Amino acid sequence: MSDEAEIRPGETTLDLPPADDARLRFIGRIRTPFQTRDDCPRQGDPEAGPDCRVELDPRLEPALEGVEGKGWLELLYWLDRSRRDLLTQRPRGSDGPRGTFSLRSPQRPNPIGSSVVRLLRREGPVLVVRGLDCLDGTPLLDLKPARCDQGVRARAENGRDG
Amino acid sequence: MSDEAEIRPGETTLDLPPADDARLRFIGRIRTPFQTRDDCPRQGDPEAGPDCRVELDPRLEPALEGVEGKGWLELLYWLDRSRRDLLTQRPRGSDGPRGTFSLRSPQRPNPIGSSVVRLLRREGPVLVVRGLDCLDGTPLLDLKPARCDQGVRARAENGRDG
Repeated sequence: MSDEAEIRPGETTLDLPPADDARLRFIGRIRTPFQTRDDCPRQGDPEAGPDCRVELDPRLEPALEGVEGKGWLELLYWLDRSRRDLLTQRPRGSDGPRGTFSLRSPQRPNPIGSSVVRLLRREGPVLVVRGLDCLDGTPLLDLKPARCDQGVRARAENGRDG
Repeated sequence: MSDEAEIRPGETTLDLPPADDARLRFIGRIRTPFQTRDDCPRQGDPEAGPDCRVELDPRLEPALEGVEGKGWLELLYWLDRSRRDLLTQRPRGSDGPRGTFSLRSPQRPNPIGSSVVRLLRREGPVLVVRGLDCLDGTPLLDLKPARCDQGVRARAENGRDG
């Protein structure tokens, strides 16, 4: 549970049995300069953002073979301080509640964050990247070559609230 | 386990205790025309690909409020027929083994697939989208507004093998 565990006016929840359809293994940790939610930028910046470290479990290091050649990586991570029962929520600064799936909020039924980051370099089982906005210590779930040209970063049709 | 459960020459595995650092809830199912791995395209096509259905658990329908206004969505799903112990693997047609994290193969420690799709319309708890490449019946984990302009779809610096 996060420091955002309290319900705000207009927010709604759904109680379901405990989640157990599949199980995850944390494969590493993400190190960022962001110690609190207030520290986190709204969106990571792969150009001007701070360097962050993706510390992979050293036992998995052979699986990094060839990653060096990828300029952009997609990272998936577990937003472990999120509540998972919000159907509608009210982001700070919004004028009313919104459906959870219309937001990229960390509070969601399966709190998996995704970012596309620029790979600066690899140091053994550690990747130095730029473009993250998550808390320091966030558990890593997956990393793979990015598919789209995130360098463009246009928010396109989705607008600022996406 | 998939029909790709067998190890090919050059592939390596790592045995670890069962994964249980976090637990997922399947929030729906993805319906595609692809019944076998051979049916699946190498990459979804949000322009010319077939219409697919994202069938959300109806209890979660209130969380879709506002999704209609998003032209592009990011979908996360569970590749439930994947093996999870491959450190290096040899994709069909490749000339040698590659590190799992340098590929977007479904075989990975946490087999979470991600796609950015074009939203065509919503029908209650069902979203009709274009751009998927996963098997029919794939469990849905999350959906959120896409962040980057996937309309561009440049493979950029990562090249074709990404």
